[in-house]
Amino acid sequence: MQASASDIARVLGGELIGDPERRIDRIAALAHAGADAITFATGARYLGALRASQAACIIVPPALREAAAARGTAIVCADPYLAYARLTRWWVAQARGEFLPGVHPSAVVEPGAHVDPGARIDALAHVGAGASIAAGAHVGAQCEVGAGAAVGVGTELRPRVVLAAGCRIGRRGLVHSGAVIGADGFGFALDAGAVRWEKIEQIGAVVIGDDVEIGANTCIDRGAIDDTVIEDGVKLDNLIQIGHNCRIGAHTAIAGCTGIAGSTHIGARCTIAGAAMIIGHLEIADDVHITVGTAVTRSIRRAGRYSGVFPFDDNAAWEKNAATLRQLYSLRERLRALEKKIDS
Amino acid sequence: MQASASDIARVLGGELIGDPERRIDRIAALAHAGADAITFATGARYLGALRASQAACIIVPPALREAAAARGTAIVCADPYLAYARLTRWWVAQARGEFLPGVHPSAVVEPGAHVDPGARIDALAHVGAGASIAAGAHVGAQCEVGAGAAVGVGTELRPRVVLAAGCRIGRRGLVHSGAVIGADGFGFALDAGAVRWEKIEQIGAVVIGDDVEIGANTCIDRGAIDDTVIEDGVKLDNLIQIGHNCRIGAHTAIAGCTGIAGSTHIGARCTIAGAAMIIGHLEIADDVHITVGTAVTRSIRRAGRYSGVFPFDDNAAWEKNAATLRQLYSLRERLRALEKKIDS
Amino acid sequence: MQASASDIARVLGGELIGDPERRIDRIAALAHAGADAITFATGARYLGALRASQAACIIVPPALREAAAARGTAIVCADPYLAYARLTRWWVAQARGEFLPGVHPSAVVEPGAHVDPGARIDALAHVGAGASIAAGAHVGAQCEVGAGAAVGVGTELRPRVVLAAGCRIGRRGLVHSGAVIGADGFGFALDAGAVRWEKIEQIGAVVIGDDVEIGANTCIDRGAIDDTVIEDGVKLDNLIQIGHNCRIGAHTAIAGCTGIAGSTHIGARCTIAGAAMIIGHLEIADDVHITVGTAVTRSIRRAGRYSGVFPFDDNAAWEKNAATLRQLYSLRERLRALEKKIDS
Repeated sequence: MQASASDIARVLGGELIGDPERRIDRIAALAHAGADAITFATGARYLGALRASQAACIIVPPALREAAAARGTAIVCADPYLAYARLTRWWVAQARGEFLPGVHPSAVVEPGAHVDPGARIDALAHVGAGASIAAGAHVGAQCEVGAGAAVGVGTELRPRVVLAAGCRIGRRGLVHSGAVIGADGFGFALDAGAVRWEKIEQIGAVVIGDDVEIGANTCIDRGAIDDTVIEDGVKLDNLIQIGHNCRIGAHTAIAGCTGIAGSTHIGARCTIAGAAMIIGHLEIADDVHITVGTAVTRSIRRAGRYSGVFPFDDNAAWEKNAATLRQLYSLRERLRALEKKIDS
Repeated sequence: MQASASDIARVLGGELIGDPERRIDRIAALAHAGADAITFATGARYLGALRASQAACIIVPPALREAAAARGTAIVCADPYLAYARLTRWWVAQARGEFLPGVHPSAVVEPGAHVDPGARIDALAHVGAGASIAAGAHVGAQCEVGAGAAVGVGTELRPRVVLAAGCRIGRRGLVHSGAVIGADGFGFALDAGAVRWEKIEQIGAVVIGDDVEIGANTCIDRGAIDDTVIEDGVKLDNLIQIGHNCRIGAHTAIAGCTGIAGSTHIGARCTIAGAAMIIGHLEIADDVHITVGTAVTRSIRRAGRYSGVFPFDDNAAWEKNAATLRQLYSLRERLRALEKKIDS
Repeated sequence: MQASASDIARVLGGELIGDPERRIDRIAALAHAGADAITFATGARYLGALRASQAACIIVPPALREAAAARGTAIVCADPYLAYARLTRWWVAQARGEFLPGVHPSAVVEPGAHVDPGARIDALAHVGAGASIAAGAHVGAQCEVGAGAAVGVGTELRPRVVLAAGCRIGRRGLVHSGAVIGADGFGFALDAGAVRWEKIEQIGAVVIGDDVEIGANTCIDRGAIDDTVIEDGVKLDNLIQIGHNCRIGAHTAIAGCTGIAGSTHIGARCTIAGAAMIIGHLEIADDVHITVGTAVTRSIRRAGRYSGVFPFDDNAAWEKNAATLRQLYSLRERLRALEKKIDS
């Protein structure tokens, strides 16, 4: 794959400075970009690196226009990081070449499944009865698409995804390997007489909107009665657990290792950092931002940033503080007693 | 699938009030149950919703008998939530139809495996040499059953489960997609001379009792020397890690994202909330309840509820409190000094 | 499998005491070792158990030589735990028998892949175009090796591993079931105008050194531009998330359920306990030890032990302390006010 600076300026819609024919063979980070690479600088803190760079071309914001022009070929864009994102998508699409539809001979498509002639099913995939695979959809090698499940136009399941029976994903989605969509929610009734758990069959499904990305080995459980819902534009990282009956609002992004227990509803445009945990049956408003490792144990009604993680320290300091923490309530009582004594 | 109110009353063993022929097409939540649905109300807090409901039939406790009778068709059961659980199981079993045994032609069964004629092996599954699949067992599509592993009567492995060599699961179990039973425990000896880790081969297996459910992408490691043991009736949610040589007591339920390190023994009838973590070589008594996100770092000898999670707050408040927390020990010392000063 | 005490002494290079012909049928833990088993004792705290043991042979350190000799057959080694590790490896290798190369007829090897005649590909595995499988490599049943990926000499992929396109693992590695190596990193640019996330294609790969072990359902993401790097001798437990562009230093060991966000570099010989979380773009020095459940939120420049987890307690005590914790800053202010008052 190669392109000229003017090809890329056209794709990004930015102003080209310097040599329009400058040939570009790859995308690189600013620190490592050689004379064959295009890179980007997002702001003034990268000015030194920009001036020193040997890159074939640098994407810069208007504020760095002069400095970039003094160095060599550049493309000026309002938001270089967004431009870089778009460049990667165009670059990869060009490099990937034509989408080849068809069903690999080793794949198993059960009778009654509908595979659009414009869809692609890779080696050793299994498509259940009554499943529907739309045009431009790409079911990767070793995937499992359950009975009656549906994959929307242009959605890609990377190798070894499970989309269980009756679950649906919309258009232009991307699901990474090992993700399990539609396992049973964790639902049991305690049979107190017999001291055992009686399973509640999970008769809902998982319904996923358009433009959703789901990370590797992430799990989204099917609803107990109604469906679990992932709205348009949601981005989920790896190893996330989403319980039954959750609803994740549009364009919310959740980082890895986070768990969200059943029946919690999360608003739109939230960001949830890694290893957060949100208990069940909560309501989280739109535009809420949860920081790393925070346990959310009650509903959040107002937009804002919320945190709750133990500050780490060297082990000796932590030990002393943690031991004191276990007496914190009594310290407060002692302080109160002192205050009374002094005020009296 | 459809049934009459009297069919369902018979299954649940409850008292039928109203129209025995009332036709029911689906199960729904109380808030959404239409005229074709059966639903349930567990107590007086749902009285308003019960009175307003258009549901075909409502399962109620004796205390709501009058209110339900005034509304329409109902079934009175001692524990409506448990009755609802049983209803879902009966409903799904009816809808599922007859169990069809047989081995899909795309499955690979190695020579020396024993597959009961009453078992079912789905597409692209692999059954290793010497493995044993009992009558009524259902090995889902793309599953891997290792050499010498055993699946008990009536146990279902959903698509893409790994039951590794020599591991055994009992009767009436259910394992969700992506679960890995029998990977090696994390065991290494430090070769201090060479500053490297020497692997300890994990020669134990995983032994799982009857009526156990295991969630999606959950991992249970094989024992180092002896076996890792999961007792009867245990329920494990998704993305749980259970280390080598653990023993999980009967009817204990563990929620998602929890990790239990090696050689820890957990008693019977415990509940462990999501994202808890329990370090290795501990003993946890019967009837212990651990709340969300708690790190258990020493043995628990007495039944009860245990917690330890940082209370979350808006970020500004958290920052101030977390910063102070790092000086907590010195605050205690200052308090002590003040107390001395005042008392002297 | 069976061996004599002298066979094993020869393998371990230790001093044999007692009966060189003593027959050994299995390896067992000291507490359960019967007359057919070899076991080990690492120090004086096991003296009672050693004296009482019926084991065929016991591996002991020089300090326990006398006690062991008084009991029966023994092998004296400088480090019995390391000797036990080596014994398990030799034992399992003997029991496993000869490595049988070849491609199972149900596996799918795409045109252009290179499979060494000395490699083994098991049932229903899929090897993509341009992939390379070296001599002595073992690709387990149902594995997915992507286009252009490479598996080094003697490396084993257990059943159902994903090694995505272009990713490489070195020699003598071991990857457990469900691991996903090379899913896309979690990279998006916020298109603030449209209030949506624009995907950044992840054009780096994952490069893994020699002697690396990777646990079940662990995820290692491919780099955004440059590669994610796992150095020689690293040991990763189950259900770990390693973000794009991370570098994990040689011989570092990481326990289960830990998450490491993107672009963080971890030094050599570190140990990271379970359920830790490390945010992105940090530098962690060599020889750093992180304890269980610790959230690392800033770089660590010095070797040492670091902690930060809320001490758990019975629920009532925790509730009082956690409530007080939310007023901690104001307690400090009140203490300061008291100090002033008294000093004035």
